Amino acid sequence: EDVMDHSDHELWVKEPYRDKRLIVKTAKPFNAEIPPKEQVEHFDTPNELFYVRQHMPVPELDEKTHSFKIYVKGVNKQFEFSLSELDRFPRVSIRAALMCAGNRRSEMNKVKPVKGLNWAGGAISNAVWTGVRLRDVLIHCGVDLEDTEGKHVIFTGADMDATGMNFSTSIPLHQAVDPRADILIATHMNGVPLPPDHGYPLRAIVPGAPAVRSVKWLESITISRDESPSHWHQKDYRGFNPSKTWETADFSTAPPVYSLPVTSALCDPVDGDTVNVKGGCVTLKGYAYSGGGAKILRVDVSMDQGQSWIEAELKSDPAPPRQHYSWTLWMLNVPVKRGDTKMEVWVKATDSNFNTQPEKFDDIWNIRGILGNAYHKVKFNVKHN
Amino acid sequence: EDVMDHSDHELWVKEPYRDKRLIVKTAKPFNAEIPPKEQVEHFDTPNELFYVRQHMPVPELDEKTHSFKIYVKGVNKQFEFSLSELDRFPRVSIRAALMCAGNRRSEMNKVKPVKGLNWAGGAISNAVWTGVRLRDVLIHCGVDLEDTEGKHVIFTGADMDATGMNFSTSIPLHQAVDPRADILIATHMNGVPLPPDHGYPLRAIVPGAPAVRSVKWLESITISRDESPSHWHQKDYRGFNPSKTWETADFSTAPPVYSLPVTSALCDPVDGDTVNVKGGCVTLKGYAYSGGGAKILRVDVSMDQGQSWIEAELKSDPAPPRQHYSWTLWMLNVPVKRGDTKMEVWVKATDSNFNTQPEKFDDIWNIRGILGNAYHKVKFNVKHN
Ligand SMILES: [Mo]
Ligand SMILES: [Mo]
Repeated sequence: EDVMDHSDHELWVKEPYRDKRLIVKTAKPFNAEIPPKEQVEHFDTPNELFYVRQHMPVPELDEKTHSFKIYVKGVNKQFEFSLSELDRFPRVSIRAALMCAGNRRSEMNKVKPVKGLNWAGGAISNAVWTGVRLRDVLIHCGVDLEDTEGKHVIFTGADMDATGMNFSTSIPLHQAVDPRADILIATHMNGVPLPPDHGYPLRAIVPGAPAVRSVKWLESITISRDESPSHWHQKDYRGFNPSKTWETADFSTAPPVYSLPVTSALCDPVDGDTVNVKGGCVTLKGYAYSGGGAKILRVDVSMDQGQSWIEAELKSDPAPPRQHYSWTLWMLNVPVKRGDTKMEVWVKATDSNFNTQPEKFDDIWNIRGILGNAYHKVKFNVKHN
Repeated sequence: EDVMDHSDHELWVKEPYRDKRLIVKTAKPFNAEIPPKEQVEHFDTPNELFYVRQHMPVPELDEKTHSFKIYVKGVNKQFEFSLSELDRFPRVSIRAALMCAGNRRSEMNKVKPVKGLNWAGGAISNAVWTGVRLRDVLIHCGVDLEDTEGKHVIFTGADMDATGMNFSTSIPLHQAVDPRADILIATHMNGVPLPPDHGYPLRAIVPGAPAVRSVKWLESITISRDESPSHWHQKDYRGFNPSKTWETADFSTAPPVYSLPVTSALCDPVDGDTVNVKGGCVTLKGYAYSGGGAKILRVDVSMDQGQSWIEAELKSDPAPPRQHYSWTLWMLNVPVKRGDTKMEVWVKATDSNFNTQPEKFDDIWNIRGILGNAYHKVKFNVKHN
């Protein structure tokens, strides 16, 4: 999640057109949130509103000439596929949210400053991804499904830093070949070819994992005894307790984040809004999400700082219980008392493992500001007509 | 989790011998915790110390004559197996903790009274279970692995209430046939035949789920369009928010608990203990556990009410990442200042989905007192020599 300033003009001149509604956090590389009210307007986020998280300039690729390679270390084999050669594998579609591990970092930042993009809650969006199963491709390449222990699948993208290093990260091979993990090599997003900002023409989709594992502009896959050696894999996206500092945190022994915890947010109204009371009520809308295939079972809302809780109405994708990779949208009409002018909302979700969110950010604070899944607490004003 | 008083002497006269070290909560039915200090003395709990949770008298069964039936509704087929006929299936061993959904209820009870056995943290133990895979047996019986949606596997035990109703509960068929769910029909516990208190001669083992799903004295399995109709399944082991009362809670729409959230506890010392300081330190020992196959990645301990956190040393089972059904034991030496006489420990765990525990029980409180996984907070005294 480093925010590098690639200010060399030439590198950036071919960046794609971006929708003006996106909330830009950094221009180079381009990092932008979806506006919260747009999040809850669409169950599947329109491609042009899907949040964007880049590490480097967007590479220019062509689906007609692009190919990707698979290296199977140990057996020392190499395979190369053009996009049309992927047609030999069954095409499948998976609905999955992608969320940056640093989503909601701005709330953690208020406890004590952390390093990273100051995301509000807009670093998550939902889409239907179409492509072929990574598992099928690996089987085709002779990867032994029974010999996965200690092995990793390294994804390398075509994006490159100033030193010529390609972006790369990895996931455990065990996860890569798990049929329930629904990992894709995707060509399409919501029915159309991947836009350049989302990995055109080929992207790994690792549902339930931090979005960083869903490598864009996929160029190669390597089956290896080691995790990706890249900076992005080794020095980022690992969890620490609040007492670990940049001096004491040992990235080499800290486990990488391969699955995200349960979270939720109120998206409409947003903090500081003034909302008109209609029929004695205001309407609250938000999202909830849990990684690793867990489904959101309940979203509870409190208007009195936790004294009482009301269950929200959920809109869910009908995926099987342990393969639930979509977000859930929620809605709730809450009554407003005649004299009230200010309201405070607390939101918390419960997932299918009955995990819930911590109340506050203090005890989940970490140097990198990731995994910020405490209750979402929002204050807004109400206007009676 | 109903505590029925079956006071009819005749029903109870044949109850098995129980180890005197067990901490008895109710005698009829027999419900008893393992002493906390015994929990952390053994990675696999000795059978005689494994916590016991009964709903009814222990049925007297004989492995030579016991058989169990499988009913596949729809195709209207019925199968019957003696124990020796199970030998046709491969035997497998799985290390799994079993935990009562009501473990740690006594802490939730302090917030506001709940209904159920007042368990401290001793309603969890760990064992190696040996038997055959439920999946293999269901495949043998012709169950269609591709047609699982909306179907359930009902387990029925030989234990019976005063009205002649057998104990029963169910799990989704999707979960039952998931190879990664590691569900067994078990005959052995830690290498010996199941003791009567733990289901002799046959028990379903559903790792990662509340122990109630691991039905003892297994008599039949039914593949059904419906969940188990039993009281124990329909009117218990479902989650609600803290504002739901016995009047407003709708069990028919609340999702059953099929997987347990991340939890942890300090077992030695226990609350109120006086501990000798050795080498300027005291040693803390406890367990941590997460359901659904999640592994414990970190246990953090605070000696200053959350101001700072120290990572404990973990002892884990080497199971694959998403099939981690064992508990994890943890240990930490904490320094004691010369003048200190009282200490307070807070413990929290983080699992492989990076879910953590809520700080307090208030917002996870529920009428049935289940899913109590807030931080474990323990006060003890220290004695300097
Ligand atoms: Mo990220
Ligand atoms: Mo239980």
